[in-house]
Amino acid sequence: MRIRGRGTCDGLVARMPIAGHGEDVEMGEKSFQEYYPEQLSHCYGCGRLNEFGLHIQSYWDGEESVCRFQPRPYHIAIPGFVYGGLIASLIDCHCTGTAAAASYRSEGQAMGTEPALRFVTASLHVDYLRPTPLGVPLEVRASVKEVKGRKVIMTATLSADGNVCARGEVVAVRMPEHLVTK
Amino acid sequence: MRIRGRGTCDGLVARMPIAGHGEDVEMGEKSFQEYYPEQLSHCYGCGRLNEFGLHIQSYWDGEESVCRFQPRPYHIAIPGFVYGGLIASLIDCHCTGTAAAASYRSEGQAMGTEPALRFVTASLHVDYLRPTPLGVPLEVRASVKEVKGRKVIMTATLSADGNVCARGEVVAVRMPEHLVTK
Repeated sequence: MRIRGRGTCDGLVARMPIAGHGEDVEMGEKSFQEYYPEQLSHCYGCGRLNEFGLHIQSYWDGEESVCRFQPRPYHIAIPGFVYGGLIASLIDCHCTGTAAAASYRSEGQAMGTEPALRFVTASLHVDYLRPTPLGVPLEVRASVKEVKGRKVIMTATLSADGNVCARGEVVAVRMPEHLVTK
Repeated sequence: MRIRGRGTCDGLVARMPIAGHGEDVEMGEKSFQEYYPEQLSHCYGCGRLNEFGLHIQSYWDGEESVCRFQPRPYHIAIPGFVYGGLIASLIDCHCTGTAAAASYRSEGQAMGTEPALRFVTASLHVDYLRPTPLGVPLEVRASVKEVKGRKVIMTATLSADGNVCARGEVVAVRMPEHLVTK
């Protein structure tokens, strides 16, 4: 099974297979976030134009979306573990990106075409199941539960070393078009 | 009404009255986070020893706890608004600090005395009610709903310019003593 893209930005783990799959990922495909219109690409979590940001990138892996991220040493909670705010941020931004990609899919519209589909978070829920080890890459996977009008509901897991450390649920809502198109 | 402390760290708004109260805050009292044991003061969100972190600080204001934070320009979601991951992080760290302070209160134990009471997040829920404007100080307020054994349940609001932009609920669980005392 081949993955459709891989991270190239700071903070992502290049050339690493997605956990659970033995093959290396395929290069050349753009992440969801690389399709965002320029004026909506400044987000600290996922904006490619935010020089201080996390630069997360998300891709389809079949029916799931996946994002990998290497926390920095200062993303610490207590020694040896990742702080919860980063976990919430990764789930949040990965899911708003997934909501956009799922909407393009459900409307049969190619990513990046007009009208641009962009989402904001209406609600975020995270259950912290176990401490998340610091020093290893994290993998966030999201599944779309429902696309209902302008709303997309998703569940997500965050894993380290193959162990699910957190579970999330995100309700994302499509941004009004006048904000997306400027 | 006098507030018991004010922020002095980077990221906090010094000398500004708590929203809704006309008087300036009182200096000299320590924030909840300043009582954390040194080995538990590295958190990116609230650790005083994390040089890259947010350095949030929380104080009692009667039965509520309060934290004020000035987002930096790069904490952007879309132009003009704060990104959701920061909002989740502020609510999360403010509430784990509040859980510690509430436990000291409920046990009749002075802050900072042994055994050190420190909490981690079991679950975090945030409802984003409206876009949070970027450029103004944010105020997070938490109320303790329940202290039940090693668990503290809290609700929180995050406001900007006197408008509640997000509501949160946090369940925090007391850390095992061997982690707290090293």
